Amino acid sequence: MSEPKKGPLYISNTLTRKKEEFVPLRPPHVGLYVCGPTVYSDVHLGNVRTFLSFDTVYRWLTFLGYKVRYVRNITDVGHLVGDVDEGEDKIAKRARLEQLEPMEIVQKYTNGFHDVMRLFNILSPSIEPTATGHLIEQIGMVERIIASGYGYEANGSVYFDVPRFAEKHAYGELSGRRIDELLSNTRDTEGMEEKRSPLDFAIWKKAEPQHLMKWPSPWGEGFPGWHLECSAMSTKYLGQTFDIHGGGMDLKFPHHECEIAQSVAADGHAPVRYWMHGNMLTVNGRKMAKSEGNGFTPEELLTGNHKLLEKGYSAMTVRFFMLQSHYASTLDFSNAAMQAAERGLERLMAAMDLLDQLKPGASDGADIPALEQRCYDAMNDDINTPVMIGELFEGVRIINSVNDGKVSLTPSSLVKLKDLMRSMVHDVLGLQREAAKASDDGAMDGLVQEFIRMRAEAKARKDYAAGDAIRDRLAALGIILKDTKEGTTWSRA
Amino acid sequence: MSEPKKGPLYISNTLTRKKEEFVPLRPPHVGLYVCGPTVYSDVHLGNVRTFLSFDTVYRWLTFLGYKVRYVRNITDVGHLVGDVDEGEDKIAKRARLEQLEPMEIVQKYTNGFHDVMRLFNILSPSIEPTATGHLIEQIGMVERIIASGYGYEANGSVYFDVPRFAEKHAYGELSGRRIDELLSNTRDTEGMEEKRSPLDFAIWKKAEPQHLMKWPSPWGEGFPGWHLECSAMSTKYLGQTFDIHGGGMDLKFPHHECEIAQSVAADGHAPVRYWMHGNMLTVNGRKMAKSEGNGFTPEELLTGNHKLLEKGYSAMTVRFFMLQSHYASTLDFSNAAMQAAERGLERLMAAMDLLDQLKPGASDGADIPALEQRCYDAMNDDINTPVMIGELFEGVRIINSVNDGKVSLTPSSLVKLKDLMRSMVHDVLGLQREAAKASDDGAMDGLVQEFIRMRAEAKARKDYAAGDAIRDRLAALGIILKDTKEGTTWSRA
Repeated sequence: MSEPKKGPLYISNTLTRKKEEFVPLRPPHVGLYVCGPTVYSDVHLGNVRTFLSFDTVYRWLTFLGYKVRYVRNITDVGHLVGDVDEGEDKIAKRARLEQLEPMEIVQKYTNGFHDVMRLFNILSPSIEPTATGHLIEQIGMVERIIASGYGYEANGSVYFDVPRFAEKHAYGELSGRRIDELLSNTRDTEGMEEKRSPLDFAIWKKAEPQHLMKWPSPWGEGFPGWHLECSAMSTKYLGQTFDIHGGGMDLKFPHHECEIAQSVAADGHAPVRYWMHGNMLTVNGRKMAKSEGNGFTPEELLTGNHKLLEKGYSAMTVRFFMLQSHYASTLDFSNAAMQAAERGLERLMAAMDLLDQLKPGASDGADIPALEQRCYDAMNDDINTPVMIGELFEGVRIINSVNDGKVSLTPSSLVKLKDLMRSMVHDVLGLQREAAKASDDGAMDGLVQEFIRMRAEAKARKDYAAGDAIRDRLAALGIILKDTKEGTTWSRA
Repeated sequence: MSEPKKGPLYISNTLTRKKEEFVPLRPPHVGLYVCGPTVYSDVHLGNVRTFLSFDTVYRWLTFLGYKVRYVRNITDVGHLVGDVDEGEDKIAKRARLEQLEPMEIVQKYTNGFHDVMRLFNILSPSIEPTATGHLIEQIGMVERIIASGYGYEANGSVYFDVPRFAEKHAYGELSGRRIDELLSNTRDTEGMEEKRSPLDFAIWKKAEPQHLMKWPSPWGEGFPGWHLECSAMSTKYLGQTFDIHGGGMDLKFPHHECEIAQSVAADGHAPVRYWMHGNMLTVNGRKMAKSEGNGFTPEELLTGNHKLLEKGYSAMTVRFFMLQSHYASTLDFSNAAMQAAERGLERLMAAMDLLDQLKPGASDGADIPALEQRCYDAMNDDINTPVMIGELFEGVRIINSVNDGKVSLTPSSLVKLKDLMRSMVHDVLGLQREAAKASDDGAMDGLVQEFIRMRAEAKARKDYAAGDAIRDRLAALGIILKDTKEGTTWSRA
């Protein structure tokens, strides 16, 4: 048996539409950028899936030994209703409705977003920059785009000149759109008269006098265009070209296409070597959306307090459910699928609980290095979590067999199995026993059981004083022992 | 019996050194600004006290019916080692030591700060702005200060001209310092040659080429002076003059004094109507500081894993302990005081648990409106939480007497008592029933300490195998022992 190999990793690059070996620009460092939320409303489960997918990418890269700088932004200005250049700023609109200052809206929904991330055990990124925190960098980028000839000012706003850019550079490469097709599909919209072409997009927008979120700029008071922030912040923290950019598939066009154009125009480089896009979550086969009434919040999910939910499901059940599908596939949420995930997770966790008490034997009845290699191979094959989970259930089968005395593992194989299961389940998949309390109680119970064992030994050698001393010492710590026919149990005072 | 009156509130204004009736500028709105943490290291318990004090102010203002906009900043640039104009930026220094990008340091310790705030049930402010997120506003304020004649540029930095300002305006009013005394106490420091007077302070600092945290400005690349951010952000979100500014007493001079001068110079207004300063936390009579080895972290406090701690204390015990003293008094942390607080909190919470099962009677054996009035009066007397807690224990006495059938309350009085106790304990003081975890940790530490003692005994009798067996057994339970010069400590794996 040879030692399993951790790499190389292959990922589906949505830019080249090929599965490619991942080769970082500056190993062991990896730069990873993921588009974060626009903090104007509660996140729903579809958002959670996107961030969970890239949490898994981040965890796997880290497991492979890379030093990952993971940047995930907070959009707190510039994202307009309808995701185009017209309409009200989403946050400003919400501020008006809730009668708050826009930054109070930002704080409220950023807090809510963080609560949800914590609930699902989604790790914090290394840096979580905000659009309003990088105005100077964004203004600088607009200036560079104007200087390169691909940006023009009109009436206090600045637009990106798409047709001119497309003459010399690839535009539409990521999304597969063609300029002529895009042009034939445009329709007139308000404010269009400022644009040379309907394909042009705002990189700086003039602010109306009553607008609260505005900053001085060389073009007057305004705010940055939505697409610009990601370009400015990824460049600042990861460099002009970096390794991986991720986001939901709905951001591919126009958002990510515009990011590429902005970076090429401003700095002369394509910004990203590997693009990765997560797929959508549907509910009973239909797109998740608030307007459909099926965009339930994590809170509704946990409590089961929604007409589409038969019962509440824990955050870890949802996490496990989502990991059972590949990030690039659509995933359909249904009560039947959730209840199956609930049973699967319980079976996995029950096996994890057995790990500590497994006893080694004299020979190997299972090939743990081969299992380990298959886990690694699955993850290295474009983060294939469903296949990896399938292998973990092979691990569950081995654990149960060793526990039943039907399969034997040598001490070193047993250590390997424990390490593998723990690192894959806890570190890579981020699955935990539900509450912190549970794991505490596990350790706590383990400690008390040690004392119960020592007390039994003392009694066995008729050292009753030592036995009583242990009981008294535990009582002083609020732990009461009780001797029953089945043995000694304990409870809190 | 008349209905209790909720107001008016009196607060000790540290600017006028008088207890004054609080009259907001634009009722029912109240603007509250509190200096937040510099996110370059873990917060210690002294920091927690400051934020808890103003959390209580925020909760009380909200209880009184005010619509509070509470701004508490995050300092993520410009705070130099030694708190003066020389030396390295605290965050840049930490970034160098940990080999991270400065914003990774900011993210790490901001996350840690938020975790601690959540642990102690300290509410999120309405807006939590960052210094790096407000460069444009700070540069604008420097320009206004220069335009007013109280700022001057020297070698790419901009300084505030304190003597010139003091000719026309009060400088030292808040801290009680006098210009002539300050002058006689100054000493030469590096970089002093740029300043016209040693009392002048930097509002913009030129950045060295290798400096990572720098932005373009009219004076070249640099970063804002530490005092400036609070002035720029409070002005942006609360207006040029706002109601209450809070912070730790150590910030009174120079930080808050400089804030006043900056606002007067830039906008012609004293910025704050009521200044409030929280007092220090000492440990066994000595100042809490990392260099003293007594600046323990919340984590150490909860686990009891610190040589000065006899056992672990829950976050709610600490909260209750701190609320038992007035925010403007020094507070000494000791094991005896903590254990008294633990018993007191338990007594209070046990009474709260009885509330639901109390049965009304035919007459009133206790005057609940009078109790309610005394609670309000205590809080309205400069947020006097210790007196209010004393009144709550009168409530505890009534609850226990009703429960024992010794005192009768009519149905309406019983409802009043329940409302009063719940709103004061939960909403105003922010006390909650512990999570099971916290109390676990106390017992947990006790158990682990027993093993540490047994292991030391095994080693003392040179039974190293037994010592190692204990260590391995704990490791299997996820508990890692570490031998240090001061003895053995433990942590979770």
